[in-house]
Amino acid sequence: MKKGRLIVISGPSGVGKGTVVRALLERDPQLRVSVSATTRPMRPNEIDGVHYYFISHEKFEEMIAQDLFLEHAQYVGNYYGTPEAPVDRMLEQGFDVILEIEVQGGLQVMKRRPDAISVFLVAPSFEVLAARLRGRGDTDEEKVLMRLQQARMEYLVASQYQYVVVNDRLEDAVSDVQAILRADAIKTEHQQHFLKEAL
Amino acid sequence: MKKGRLIVISGPSGVGKGTVVRALLERDPQLRVSVSATTRPMRPNEIDGVHYYFISHEKFEEMIAQDLFLEHAQYVGNYYGTPEAPVDRMLEQGFDVILEIEVQGGLQVMKRRPDAISVFLVAPSFEVLAARLRGRGDTDEEKVLMRLQQARMEYLVASQYQYVVVNDRLEDAVSDVQAILRADAIKTEHQQHFLKEAL
Repeated sequence: MKKGRLIVISGPSGVGKGTVVRALLERDPQLRVSVSATTRPMRPNEIDGVHYYFISHEKFEEMIAQDLFLEHAQYVGNYYGTPEAPVDRMLEQGFDVILEIEVQGGLQVMKRRPDAISVFLVAPSFEVLAARLRGRGDTDEEKVLMRLQQARMEYLVASQYQYVVVNDRLEDAVSDVQAILRADAIKTEHQQHFLKEAL
Repeated sequence: MKKGRLIVISGPSGVGKGTVVRALLERDPQLRVSVSATTRPMRPNEIDGVHYYFISHEKFEEMIAQDLFLEHAQYVGNYYGTPEAPVDRMLEQGFDVILEIEVQGGLQVMKRRPDAISVFLVAPSFEVLAARLRGRGDTDEEKVLMRLQQARMEYLVASQYQYVVVNDRLEDAVSDVQAILRADAIKTEHQQHFLKEAL
């Protein structure tokens, strides 16, 4: 069986990463999404193994020491990371696996797995991004400005991603990612078996 | 206006390059195809400027001396080549321009225009390619074997193309090329204006 592909999807808070990823999963049965591990407490509406793998601080540090994460980071006193083993299991089964992660994690994955496909989602403009953040009901203007400042930092790192997809109309963004996956599969490096037949 | 893109499409005799290119032109109004120049005599069913620009041997060599070709080659005593000016005119007008050319010409174009998108068309297998060549009505077995031998040489060079598209079902091959064009447009290098907004 042909191994699946690792797909890193990042983008600023408010750009609609989750919506794009869900739409992709609905359209493509060969796609799976990775579940992150965290040390933060489980919230009432969350399910262990679905929203996150909820693990202890000690367990997380043990896994870091054993190099069992594709990427990990600390955020507001808690660890977040992507355990490598479940991802590799899905890839071996032939599924393409999406990692919906922050840019720090994205860069770690690209370094560790240079064959990963990397996509950075942007809003059509910063104005639109600001409007989306303000429209979330979270009307704390200071938080909005902090998120926009964070977005600026992320955009600077984004040039290390292979593709930049604009999330204006959801359908277009989803089709863009699907085109990326289709085109990647027929890159010459992945089609050598057709050329080798000539030998 | 945004400049168009140069697209090199090559592939062995019998693979169906012409059919794929015609189908692409029908589906995408932003696409144009380049017209080659040649010194061979015009045939009864051909139109100057449509099938080829028919020019004299002297004129062709003058154009070579002035470096006016994107690529050119000699074949059975005649010159064939792609004049650069009409292609650049279409690119400036925002059209994507397909060059349907042999691999020697394809390599020349890739060297001269490193931003060109290059696609090599293959048959699902050499058996299928042989069957297509035999099914053309041209049943001269020696010619078929010569074309297959030529195809083997071309496959060896094909690894220098960016993409290898299998022409099994026409619709799939056309969708593959369309995905290549869509994905190319959103490569990070072509989306810098979105990232620059953060500065």
